[in-house]
Amino acid sequence: MTVNLSAPDPAKLWPVPGVRLGIAQAGIRKVGRKDLTLILLDAGSTVAGVFTKNRFCAAPVQVCQAHLASGAQVRALLINTGNANAGTGAQGLQDAHATCQALAPLLGLQPSQVLPFSTGVIMENLPVDRIVAGLPAALADAQAGHWGKAAEAIMTTDTVPKAFSQKVTLSGTVVTITGISKGAGMIQPNMATMLGFLATDANIAPHLLEGLVADLADASFNRITIDGDTSTNDSFMLMATHQAAHTQITDWASSDAQLLKAALLSVAQLLAHAIVRDGEGATKFITVRVEGGHTSEECRLVAYAIAHSPLVKTAFFASDPNLGRILAAVGYAGIEDLDPNRINLYLDDVCVAQSGGRNPAYQEADGQRVMKQSEITVRVQLGRGQAADTVWTCDLSHEYVSINADYRS
Amino acid sequence: MTVNLSAPDPAKLWPVPGVRLGIAQAGIRKVGRKDLTLILLDAGSTVAGVFTKNRFCAAPVQVCQAHLASGAQVRALLINTGNANAGTGAQGLQDAHATCQALAPLLGLQPSQVLPFSTGVIMENLPVDRIVAGLPAALADAQAGHWGKAAEAIMTTDTVPKAFSQKVTLSGTVVTITGISKGAGMIQPNMATMLGFLATDANIAPHLLEGLVADLADASFNRITIDGDTSTNDSFMLMATHQAAHTQITDWASSDAQLLKAALLSVAQLLAHAIVRDGEGATKFITVRVEGGHTSEECRLVAYAIAHSPLVKTAFFASDPNLGRILAAVGYAGIEDLDPNRINLYLDDVCVAQSGGRNPAYQEADGQRVMKQSEITVRVQLGRGQAADTVWTCDLSHEYVSINADYRS
Repeated sequence: MTVNLSAPDPAKLWPVPGVRLGIAQAGIRKVGRKDLTLILLDAGSTVAGVFTKNRFCAAPVQVCQAHLASGAQVRALLINTGNANAGTGAQGLQDAHATCQALAPLLGLQPSQVLPFSTGVIMENLPVDRIVAGLPAALADAQAGHWGKAAEAIMTTDTVPKAFSQKVTLSGTVVTITGISKGAGMIQPNMATMLGFLATDANIAPHLLEGLVADLADASFNRITIDGDTSTNDSFMLMATHQAAHTQITDWASSDAQLLKAALLSVAQLLAHAIVRDGEGATKFITVRVEGGHTSEECRLVAYAIAHSPLVKTAFFASDPNLGRILAAVGYAGIEDLDPNRINLYLDDVCVAQSGGRNPAYQEADGQRVMKQSEITVRVQLGRGQAADTVWTCDLSHEYVSINADYRS
Repeated sequence: MTVNLSAPDPAKLWPVPGVRLGIAQAGIRKVGRKDLTLILLDAGSTVAGVFTKNRFCAAPVQVCQAHLASGAQVRALLINTGNANAGTGAQGLQDAHATCQALAPLLGLQPSQVLPFSTGVIMENLPVDRIVAGLPAALADAQAGHWGKAAEAIMTTDTVPKAFSQKVTLSGTVVTITGISKGAGMIQPNMATMLGFLATDANIAPHLLEGLVADLADASFNRITIDGDTSTNDSFMLMATHQAAHTQITDWASSDAQLLKAALLSVAQLLAHAIVRDGEGATKFITVRVEGGHTSEECRLVAYAIAHSPLVKTAFFASDPNLGRILAAVGYAGIEDLDPNRINLYLDDVCVAQSGGRNPAYQEADGQRVMKQSEITVRVQLGRGQAADTVWTCDLSHEYVSINADYRS
């Protein structure tokens, strides 16, 4: 079950010049499923990424960071599902390196030009042999048109593949942005078991890429939450092949640059929202908007308190306008000098609470009407300042418990 | 369903000299259920309390704090279920005062000598008329032996009443400690919709009471969590009638004082644990012990990250030793300079992870055996220092979602 999300239309997933994708069935955890994906980049491409802040970050995350820090020109991304290679200690690092070492010579590369990604069960050793055995098939499969197939191959508990494309014209040159992502639980600020891969042929000056990927993540993947858990493996990668013929973008001042950045953000947000829409057990997509804070940080604090509250999330699941639970979450979010008497609360257009108390004009039927929708915006006004922030989340259902209780069985 | 918790044996709930309890059916939310409780204290008693830190603290909490701060000698506690009188703004405060003003003259007291407590639905106005109408019946019912009946009357989603008694002999004089509590969701550090009332006839110097209640809460109610939500109404009250004939306890140095404090803590912990054992949907009682931290604060940070993780909690529900989820929670708890390679993880006596990786000797059958128990201790060793801390929690089941999705229906 997803919230207003269906599988991507292959006809609307445009290849990105300079990027090819190859998929294989390596039998990593289960036989007969696509579980190995290669993303191959033409020479001259640039890659930047943001990674989980979990101190127990998985071995592949550590290897990615080391390879990126080495300054090596990344030419291949190697993604497996079924096993996260996390909580695996020194053996895990050795295994992640081993997969890069196996792939590199097949492409005439150094191992540091390969970035490894793993998602799946934690604390089990990576079946390196099976991954290595699957590489030739994945390489043989590599095509520019395989974005949809790759979106399928990186799924774990996702119920639909997640892929989006957009084209934008920069001074007459059409550039393409295409991305894929996977969730679906353990989604939290600063990432979660989510993987996101965004590619463009836009000619962005390489020195801009690191700041750009951080900005994009901050306004997309770092603003979603499903259950508050932060995974060990989260990675969001931005790949630029620089092959489009427009003048190179060297800063963000021009209208072309702004247009490109907006389009990249739009695809990143679609990918991030798709993770929530396919959140484990999700039946509703909820936008939590907090306004009127002194800083966006304190707005985010309140937004996450609401978005993480199991009581709020079950009330949404039940379409029960038990909205005091939202006020309670505002109250414990951690703003020490919050004045409850200035708080207003809206469900879409319905003013539920005013000045910290129930809005006298509020009718439960109005709250109920909004709660029954599949898309709901919760808006909290703190009455303290001009800052605002938004996070996106889903409800908490029976299905969430079932999925996570049965995940390994 | 509860975890190793049954209704109290009335024969083992001892009256506390100087305390009487009266219960009535006031029809506050539903007809035909006990929903109004009075605790009446003899002249000369002393009361101290700790309250929710939620900025949206309910009207009765604000009134309690004001009455205690006024220095008035508290003689009556007035507790209603069915309506929390929270998120009710100025009207809520007026309503809480109105109930005190109605009760005081019936007892020849000033309103400030009455403390009000409410629990139930948030953001609906308190039905003051029905509460006031129920007071005479509750007064007529007042008896020293009504602790069990009071434990029933303060229940909301609790499935069994929670009451414990203990006797301790101080220099030849027997003193009694009896308490009641209610949960069962929204339990979190710094309180939750939990109410706890602990009474003793021990002769404790009044100036010790405020520090004592804080210490007791800190090692009991402030160390439990069910879903991480902090309620607007949590209150834990300590009542001392000073009627026992032993020498007054004026500090905690003597062995008598230590004995008394240990007995008080024991009852407070039983009351707090009972809330977890009857946690909404709980099927397992889980002790999370974190050792080897620099400070107990950082141990607590890690313990709560584990205890709050929906993924960890559903794994316990499923008896699935998917223990990487615990390591992941350790990793995102917020200790910036944590060295994952020093972490050891135990399930009861089973060493699951050693030095940040899977213990080579660990067999999943051993983890499974422990996970199937109804009482489980998770022990994490951080390998950083000598501090330790413990929190108690329960698993996350289908039933939790059902209860909270249907709470108001």
